[in-house]
Amino acid sequence: MHEPADVVPAWQDAWNRADADHLAALFAEDADFVNVVGLWWHDRSSIRDAHDFGFRTIFPGSVITMAEPRVRRLGTDAAVVQSRWHLTGQISPAGEAAGPREGIFTFVLERRTQGWVAVTAQNTDIAPGAQTHLNSAAGQSPVHYRPRTS
Amino acid sequence: MHEPADVVPAWQDAWNRADADHLAALFAEDADFVNVVGLWWHDRSSIRDAHDFGFRTIFPGSVITMAEPRVRRLGTDAAVVQSRWHLTGQISPAGEAAGPREGIFTFVLERRTQGWVAVTAQNTDIAPGAQTHLNSAAGQSPVHYRPRTS
Repeated sequence: MHEPADVVPAWQDAWNRADADHLAALFAEDADFVNVVGLWWHDRSSIRDAHDFGFRTIFPGSVITMAEPRVRRLGTDAAVVQSRWHLTGQISPAGEAAGPREGIFTFVLERRTQGWVAVTAQNTDIAPGAQTHLNSAAGQSPVHYRPRTS
Repeated sequence: MHEPADVVPAWQDAWNRADADHLAALFAEDADFVNVVGLWWHDRSSIRDAHDFGFRTIFPGSVITMAEPRVRRLGTDAAVVQSRWHLTGQISPAGEAAGPREGIFTFVLERRTQGWVAVTAQNTDIAPGAQTHLNSAAGQSPVHYRPRTS
């Protein structure tokens, strides 16, 4: 990649082609990736395989739209790039259409001799109106707290 | 902070003292912070105020335990620090005891004249056994997919 921000359209393109190889090529061999449910991959091949599985089962035909990247340069050879995203076309485990999702992607990139590569990525779903998660006997869910008024 | 990894014990200390000022002091004035439900703060005072609200309503008396930091240096003046965490003592909106949570924190730090400061943070809950989130009429939930066997 020529510029750090290139990771955002490149991610969108790879996702929308359901191309795990192109997606994985954005990452360094030893890249870390934390997905929306806390799966934590530590290398490019794990990132590739997990997304290949997803494209075949969860996300075939899904469409992601990435927003304008926000770029924070850290010196000359590192950068943080963040982008909101919108996803449609996901399917449920039963194969039914699921609702759209929105979230925030953070990529950390490093300049290497061949150009910029992603060394860390983390992805988070937006749960509208929630402040945090809560675990209970029913499982994990986003929860809405309100200030206690006197 | 003298070293990038210092952010992990410092976060734990500030959290366990429910001290939003000490917690906010780890961040640059223009820091970005993406929390577990996709709230995205863009400056230190918003980070402070959100956690101050949390310490008064959701997390009073809660205890976070951070794991050994993983540190990735990016040149001499930037670093990524990641740590798993375990949280107990959260309360529900009704004031009842909630279950423990685990997650993964990623901090990006920059070396400045006064030492290392966090410029980006993102936090993700671990949903055991899940691959991704699914949105439906019932809301957002972690979901477990299994390969379709022939």
